Amino acid sequence: MKLKYKPEELTKLPRSVEYRDKKVYLIDQRLLPREFKVISLSTVEQVAKAIKTMQVRGAPAIGAAAAFGLALYAERSRAETKDEFFNGFYRAYEILKNTRPTAVNLFWALNRIKKLVEEHREDSLAEIKRLIVREAQKIADEDVEANLRMGHIGAEILPEGNVLTHCNAGSLATVHLGTVGAVLRVMHKEGKLNLLWVDETRPVLQGARLSAWEYHYDGIPLKLIADNMAGFVMQQGKVDAIIVGADRIVANGDFANKIGTYTLAVLAKEHGIPFFTVAPLSTIDMSLKSGEEIPIEERSREEVLTCGGCKIAPDVDVYNPAFDITPHKYLTAVITDKGVVYPPFERNLKKLF
Amino acid sequence: MKLKYKPEELTKLPRSVEYRDKKVYLIDQRLLPREFKVISLSTVEQVAKAIKTMQVRGAPAIGAAAAFGLALYAERSRAETKDEFFNGFYRAYEILKNTRPTAVNLFWALNRIKKLVEEHREDSLAEIKRLIVREAQKIADEDVEANLRMGHIGAEILPEGNVLTHCNAGSLATVHLGTVGAVLRVMHKEGKLNLLWVDETRPVLQGARLSAWEYHYDGIPLKLIADNMAGFVMQQGKVDAIIVGADRIVANGDFANKIGTYTLAVLAKEHGIPFFTVAPLSTIDMSLKSGEEIPIEERSREEVLTCGGCKIAPDVDVYNPAFDITPHKYLTAVITDKGVVYPPFERNLKKLF
Repeated sequence: MKLKYKPEELTKLPRSVEYRDKKVYLIDQRLLPREFKVISLSTVEQVAKAIKTMQVRGAPAIGAAAAFGLALYAERSRAETKDEFFNGFYRAYEILKNTRPTAVNLFWALNRIKKLVEEHREDSLAEIKRLIVREAQKIADEDVEANLRMGHIGAEILPEGNVLTHCNAGSLATVHLGTVGAVLRVMHKEGKLNLLWVDETRPVLQGARLSAWEYHYDGIPLKLIADNMAGFVMQQGKVDAIIVGADRIVANGDFANKIGTYTLAVLAKEHGIPFFTVAPLSTIDMSLKSGEEIPIEERSREEVLTCGGCKIAPDVDVYNPAFDITPHKYLTAVITDKGVVYPPFERNLKKLF
Repeated sequence: MKLKYKPEELTKLPRSVEYRDKKVYLIDQRLLPREFKVISLSTVEQVAKAIKTMQVRGAPAIGAAAAFGLALYAERSRAETKDEFFNGFYRAYEILKNTRPTAVNLFWALNRIKKLVEEHREDSLAEIKRLIVREAQKIADEDVEANLRMGHIGAEILPEGNVLTHCNAGSLATVHLGTVGAVLRVMHKEGKLNLLWVDETRPVLQGARLSAWEYHYDGIPLKLIADNMAGFVMQQGKVDAIIVGADRIVANGDFANKIGTYTLAVLAKEHGIPFFTVAPLSTIDMSLKSGEEIPIEERSREEVLTCGGCKIAPDVDVYNPAFDITPHKYLTAVITDKGVVYPPFERNLKKLF
């Protein structure tokens, strides 16, 4: 497929995660939409904390941030022997790995660097360090390239009209452009996107805080709604397609994504609206057979008892799953950087690898 | 049906709306759950404002508050002639009528008093005033009685186990006990309610602020969730029944209720979970044939751009319908104070009148 547009033709935003001069730079997503601020991190622990507290979030952005965390370790390590260096490397790997359990890109990115390092165990320490930094940069660059491809592919298969999205799988959730974000941006550029419905996405409000902000920033016409309004909007015939990201897609096409995705899938089916997920190959975990095997992260009750920093409820019990599982039967297609996958997913996903 | 329990055996809460000594007393629902405060109102304008700003909300509570607004007018009017009194009465009637458009109880309560007054036009001014106050009190008392009946009826037909509810159709939404609230309270008393799932109900958070507060106050075991978690909870088999209130039920069984209700109805169907609405006869509007005829109130964009007083989104466009329409095909039964109505609703609702 010919890529018609370059990233800078599709968004005014800079990259969300960058590495230079022995520092990791992140757009602090906890401060948006109030403040658009880039923070710099210089230790593995700071990177781990940024992932855990969702200063950086979105499966591909987390993957790149973790990879840059290892680059940070490599370039700042004072180890004098290789043994010492490897001990520190595995420690950094574990710290970064134990931040969030659901998104597979995190483990994929960390393991990709770990594997490379282990393959080059016999090289010099300087060479190993150089390889780590280069591989982390490659992971980030490949993410942008993959998004650009998915954007062009997705914009071709989505129907023209009104699109609804949930959470943020935009530029902020990736290194640049976004997965869903790239599709929407190419559609907008081509005049195919009439209106974007943005679910606010409680409890952490990635839709209201991040998607509404970044798509508005890029001039895409949108309307923000509370999550529970999506059904009524569909009932009125005002949604032509739904597109969401994915935190993990498994072998049979079931996928984990931000809590609320499953409800949208059921609503899409009821209204005959096509329902798409878009994710790079790194999000597909062929080691799991079905969605039931995906671990679902439960987050703190404070997220539900508060909203945007305000206390909204009395101190009662809470259930706060961060993700849900959408069975593949609700999916129209999976848009990947290697092309569109249609049902039967079990057979067709396998062909990608 | 024998009524096993009295209101005071089912809740520790006082009435939400009361009238005495020429004043209307309301639990200020804008302050909950932070503060449990009863406010007193002494003008029709204050009552209208309390309805408009949702210091009092919930269809039956609004109806009683509006009726007490007319009582307030009657007892405080300084009109010396009947003409003068009637002019003022119609003015008060209009002011109270033009507060909120969707809930039918408001118009029902106001018209009931208007009709009575018009029938007694020939009586003395003192007698007319007495009649207005008595009728308003009757509206309130009948609401409590109706809730008590619905509570007993509903608790008999709902399955034992976990129940999910949306918004607040509890004691705070009515004069006392609630519609849904009465059903849940009788179920709890009888040991039939294992766990109550409470949807937070964005944007105004009636679930988080009011339902969680009042059911917790009465010792009912509950878990609060964001609206978009309901589907995942159902997928896991953790919901045995869904019960919601209604702001208006029309002749074919379609009904308007808080935004998000329709989504729950679709989810209930997908998971084979029985779905009930509970409302007194005054909520049923036989003059409308189908749900499409119900006017849907759109509220200010600020409600979506903020949450519990905190700004949560950038200044983007918003869609904020306060209610949605659930077609009757999703309904298992309508629980009323005159008994349970099953499909076909068009035929069976008619029998109630």
